[in-house]
Amino acid sequence: MSEKRRLLHTPVEPFTIEPHASADQVLDRMRGISFQGRNLATAHDVWRKMLGDDCVIFLGVAGALSAGGLRLVIAQLITQRFVDCVVSTGANLYHDLHECRGRRHFQGSPAADDRALQAAHIDRVYDTFMDEEEFIENDNWIAAFASTLDPRPYTSRELLYRLGGHLWSETGRDGILTAAYRANVPIFCPAIADSSIGMGLSQARQEASGAGHVDVIGDIIESANIVIRKRRTASVVLGGGTPKNFINQASVQAEFYSAGIGGHQYALQIVTDVPHFGGASGSTLDEAQSWGKVAAGADQVTVNVDATVALPFLTTALASTSADICADRRRAAFDLSGREIILDGEAFPDGRFET
Amino acid sequence: MSEKRRLLHTPVEPFTIEPHASADQVLDRMRGISFQGRNLATAHDVWRKMLGDDCVIFLGVAGALSAGGLRLVIAQLITQRFVDCVVSTGANLYHDLHECRGRRHFQGSPAADDRALQAAHIDRVYDTFMDEEEFIENDNWIAAFASTLDPRPYTSRELLYRLGGHLWSETGRDGILTAAYRANVPIFCPAIADSSIGMGLSQARQEASGAGHVDVIGDIIESANIVIRKRRTASVVLGGGTPKNFINQASVQAEFYSAGIGGHQYALQIVTDVPHFGGASGSTLDEAQSWGKVAAGADQVTVNVDATVALPFLTTALASTSADICADRRRAAFDLSGREIILDGEAFPDGRFET
Amino acid sequence: MSEKRRLLHTPVEPFTIEPHASADQVLDRMRGISFQGRNLATAHDVWRKMLGDDCVIFLGVAGALSAGGLRLVIAQLITQRFVDCVVSTGANLYHDLHECRGRRHFQGSPAADDRALQAAHIDRVYDTFMDEEEFIENDNWIAAFASTLDPRPYTSRELLYRLGGHLWSETGRDGILTAAYRANVPIFCPAIADSSIGMGLSQARQEASGAGHVDVIGDIIESANIVIRKRRTASVVLGGGTPKNFINQASVQAEFYSAGIGGHQYALQIVTDVPHFGGASGSTLDEAQSWGKVAAGADQVTVNVDATVALPFLTTALASTSADICADRRRAAFDLSGREIILDGEAFPDGRFET
Amino acid sequence: MSEKRRLLHTPVEPFTIEPHASADQVLDRMRGISFQGRNLATAHDVWRKMLGDDCVIFLGVAGALSAGGLRLVIAQLITQRFVDCVVSTGANLYHDLHECRGRRHFQGSPAADDRALQAAHIDRVYDTFMDEEEFIENDNWIAAFASTLDPRPYTSRELLYRLGGHLWSETGRDGILTAAYRANVPIFCPAIADSSIGMGLSQARQEASGAGHVDVIGDIIESANIVIRKRRTASVVLGGGTPKNFINQASVQAEFYSAGIGGHQYALQIVTDVPHFGGASGSTLDEAQSWGKVAAGADQVTVNVDATVALPFLTTALASTSADICADRRRAAFDLSGREIILDGEAFPDGRFET
Repeated sequence: MSEKRRLLHTPVEPFTIEPHASADQVLDRMRGISFQGRNLATAHDVWRKMLGDDCVIFLGVAGALSAGGLRLVIAQLITQRFVDCVVSTGANLYHDLHECRGRRHFQGSPAADDRALQAAHIDRVYDTFMDEEEFIENDNWIAAFASTLDPRPYTSRELLYRLGGHLWSETGRDGILTAAYRANVPIFCPAIADSSIGMGLSQARQEASGAGHVDVIGDIIESANIVIRKRRTASVVLGGGTPKNFINQASVQAEFYSAGIGGHQYALQIVTDVPHFGGASGSTLDEAQSWGKVAAGADQVTVNVDATVALPFLTTALASTSADICADRRRAAFDLSGREIILDGEAFPDGRFET
Repeated sequence: MSEKRRLLHTPVEPFTIEPHASADQVLDRMRGISFQGRNLATAHDVWRKMLGDDCVIFLGVAGALSAGGLRLVIAQLITQRFVDCVVSTGANLYHDLHECRGRRHFQGSPAADDRALQAAHIDRVYDTFMDEEEFIENDNWIAAFASTLDPRPYTSRELLYRLGGHLWSETGRDGILTAAYRANVPIFCPAIADSSIGMGLSQARQEASGAGHVDVIGDIIESANIVIRKRRTASVVLGGGTPKNFINQASVQAEFYSAGIGGHQYALQIVTDVPHFGGASGSTLDEAQSWGKVAAGADQVTVNVDATVALPFLTTALASTSADICADRRRAAFDLSGREIILDGEAFPDGRFET
Repeated sequence: MSEKRRLLHTPVEPFTIEPHASADQVLDRMRGISFQGRNLATAHDVWRKMLGDDCVIFLGVAGALSAGGLRLVIAQLITQRFVDCVVSTGANLYHDLHECRGRRHFQGSPAADDRALQAAHIDRVYDTFMDEEEFIENDNWIAAFASTLDPRPYTSRELLYRLGGHLWSETGRDGILTAAYRANVPIFCPAIADSSIGMGLSQARQEASGAGHVDVIGDIIESANIVIRKRRTASVVLGGGTPKNFINQASVQAEFYSAGIGGHQYALQIVTDVPHFGGASGSTLDEAQSWGKVAAGADQVTVNVDATVALPFLTTALASTSADICADRRRAAFDLSGREIILDGEAFPDGRFET
Repeated sequence: MSEKRRLLHTPVEPFTIEPHASADQVLDRMRGISFQGRNLATAHDVWRKMLGDDCVIFLGVAGALSAGGLRLVIAQLITQRFVDCVVSTGANLYHDLHECRGRRHFQGSPAADDRALQAAHIDRVYDTFMDEEEFIENDNWIAAFASTLDPRPYTSRELLYRLGGHLWSETGRDGILTAAYRANVPIFCPAIADSSIGMGLSQARQEASGAGHVDVIGDIIESANIVIRKRRTASVVLGGGTPKNFINQASVQAEFYSAGIGGHQYALQIVTDVPHFGGASGSTLDEAQSWGKVAAGADQVTVNVDATVALPFLTTALASTSADICADRRRAAFDLSGREIILDGEAFPDGRFET
């Protein structure tokens, strides 16, 4: 009986509708329910804890979030430092650049006739349409940008910082790349070769043989050095993909050179993939503990929901409840203007892990 | 070029965070984005249109929504007549009854040791725990209730109306069953035999051989008669299951006896199952059009998200934006106190389809 | 170190292609791999164990398996007694009847224009088409059959036995219903009201007020009595739905009247739904242990795969490896010709649980 | 009526169990059924058509297939030239290398205690366990290998060819890397920075500043050059991820430099992700047509199933039915020993797209 009492301690509190409630008020009452609704409320609480603790918050961005209309949310998270370091797929940065350059994505239908779209030079991402000719023009723009760089390898982090600066000087528009540039928040893109940014870089090389070299192995070193230096880290992952694992491997690699780090102290993921097929995107945060990617005692939560549903409510709530905590937090101070990151006034060692 | 312009007409409007925004304000701006976020905003708009039109709104309830903390939301939708008729799984009604009788569900963990739970007589539904002994006591309570009924078959609709009345008189507490009783909103439960309510009824028969007869075929007739009489109908489906198809088959069956009805005018479903395995729960609303379950020109939307995430925000928004429309709407007036439903003052024919 | 050795005991044995290997040989080597491939191999082994043990094997059938081309597989499982008792959705029995009556389902496309299909009176289930006019004719046929029955409630089990007999005498064709009739294997359909069989029965009542009464509460009693009498049971579930829970609740209800049964000894499910939304279809077999639906020490396995992929290979393999075991097993002997089931020569009590 | 006849042309042919049937015989009869079973049969037919046509077949490998026991299947597909070019995640190559070096993966449980695993230095991928200390030793081995390379950027293709050669000379064991080395089949790994291979390379740089440079932008050029040169291509994708898009972008990039290629002529994907969240892994092949990644008239099929279930049966069937076609096909002849690929006797231009 006492075992039963011990297990049955917190009743489900049925949700009730209160008209005109704010997103944070709704989320507040969702703490009492079950399933993914509860997990979304917990995600708020875990993120808030991250902000109140002295840790570096990594944000992973995968899935077509920029094309789908979440790029300015991510820019706001960067500007207001709800996150400290971004790891993204190339596509999300490319689609961000596309809009920053004044082009648009369009609402369409998943049931569109794709042959007709191909004939009209329209590219589709589920229910979203894009003008293919504008994309070709972007690629040329990226190639031209790449031609202005020195003929040496750049980490994706350094390249994207310069790309953000170039975009800002040319457009003055908000977006992920420009916000990160202005806020000195590093962006890593380990799979840049699998994206239209990579395609644009490859086109630069057609003109100049040294152009468009990305040192993605250098990115591994830089990301691990952030963990080595700061030790306390948190992971916020949207959609899985390469960013999820890259953020986790930074912990593992850091541990290799500086024992005792022990994985992220906080972990939050919003994913739609499932664990039982063995893929990394859907893997549980418990599984990540076996690898030491996430600390054994970490505050963690997985929300199985499309980020386009979760993020508008979650970030609105967080901005309402945690803006003060966020403003007061001790932020990692990055200087990204050189070949090596300067963190809190001290440069990382030249092309090497900090030991 | 003009084909392209025709297709690229509505730009995606990137979402931005506005602290303290209300749920409806957040949802309002989600109209501009893509994927399931857009669909959730559309769901609000479709439901609002239903309310503004003169149609009977069916609500289907499947999945562990009552156990998971959404029973009072559903009760509010009934009380305020955001819906006119409910089709539910037995489990949702049973868990509603459980709480109405003053028992609780409890927050637990999906990683619990199920053998330990079994030993402690605790039943688990994902992350939610229940006291098995209280469940056994519920079953006895249902059996006792059934013994008070006449020894004749009852449609699930009539049975549940009486059950709601009995619960209300005994507890005076809000819930799905009691709200439907008080608001004269019919509840159908076609798969009542696959639930603990069915188990309770079967136990009544151990004492009295005529007890606990449910005339589920009569439910088919009653539900079709509602469609035949009112002709314009809408479907709001949470989670698929037997309620989804039962609501749809009412349209098909009505068409058989009264040609020209042509399917629901509006259809909205919040489901997590997918179409490509062929099951009814995940089937698309387009597919439903082939059957004539949903009208060819219907306003329709599918949101692929857990209802425990969608419903708190969607209903809060709807209560904010549409309370006046809802109050003013012409509501189907049910009298459920007899063996036959009286709808808008006129009884249905005795055990037969209205023709 | 010894803890590590204890945990790392069975190496993954990489699969190699051997041309012309039989399905059972392929499956045999899939035991060595991971993820759902391993689970499918384990499903074979668990089913084989069921057959070798003295237990009653329940088969749950949900999803559009009959329409999708698996009805004769299920008929073979019945005829050869790889299963002893079937619980099905109404749709699977209706689509079986449709083909038994010489009508067909057709291969189509999930991208078909559903308005055009509606106009042509073609009903679609994902990539499968059906002639709506033939369906209407089936419904009339079912109504006519129902008119031949006595004006009293029939359990779905008794009704479906008579329906199978009527089909067999009229068509002489193999199918689920006719195979079950001929092999004296009971079929339960607890959600019969949510199907076209239910619709046909409801139409019978238009002519004769006492027609088409299904005593689904009686089905609860009969299914539990099978468990009470035989005590050792196994569950093979395809696709979840009402059959999954109905098979499980039979164990729970049996336990209520005969303590110590303790749940199914073996459990195997082939499902595509996931656990984390809380629905019964996707729930784990571990969760079922908390309820006592599945025994604490049961041999159990979940395969997350579409049944149309799994079943052809799994049953071919099982028929190859286990035909002899199956032929030799002690089979529950049902006599289904009367109002009460006679099991192993002894009738169940009249409309009551056996105690 | 004639429209109906036109649409209802091919009846579903219900599957029947034939004991001892070979995998290809089972698959042959699965052509007649519906849903994913039909799709798996179609996958066989599409792949067979690829082999009979004069085209370059790309294989994309994502998900934990090597760890899960499919690495030798993939090696056989390479050796027997069922595929001509591989694009893989880093993890699949790393786990392949792990086993090639004589280490093992182990069968475990998804319900394992991950804190206990972490304490025992065991890493988990769903139901598969690995020895973390062996992984650290692999990383050192990779770092040592990298130190033997010239201090210049290598495309992942060139690097992996040399890694395969090194592995082969050291172990003489079969695997993906060694089979590709011996068969002169190129492997690309665009997201190598997001893997333990990347981690090993980064560790090489700790010793020698020029070490471990991977020119992933060069991979874009090389992969596009294969498409530009051969023009007719096919895509076989397991699990989505970066390989899926990288294979597709090769077509798009090739089109940029050599108009009229028009996308893959054949496309086959075995994926478990779904389209409606907008991610690339789950995107449909129809969507790929809008981009020109897949040709408008391509033979294509998506199978929604775990590759560990599909691949053993599919490849066994293919090896049975198509070995002769495969042996006779005109194969792209790669010479991978130099900095630039030599294809059919002619080298690609130095670091540039072929125009």
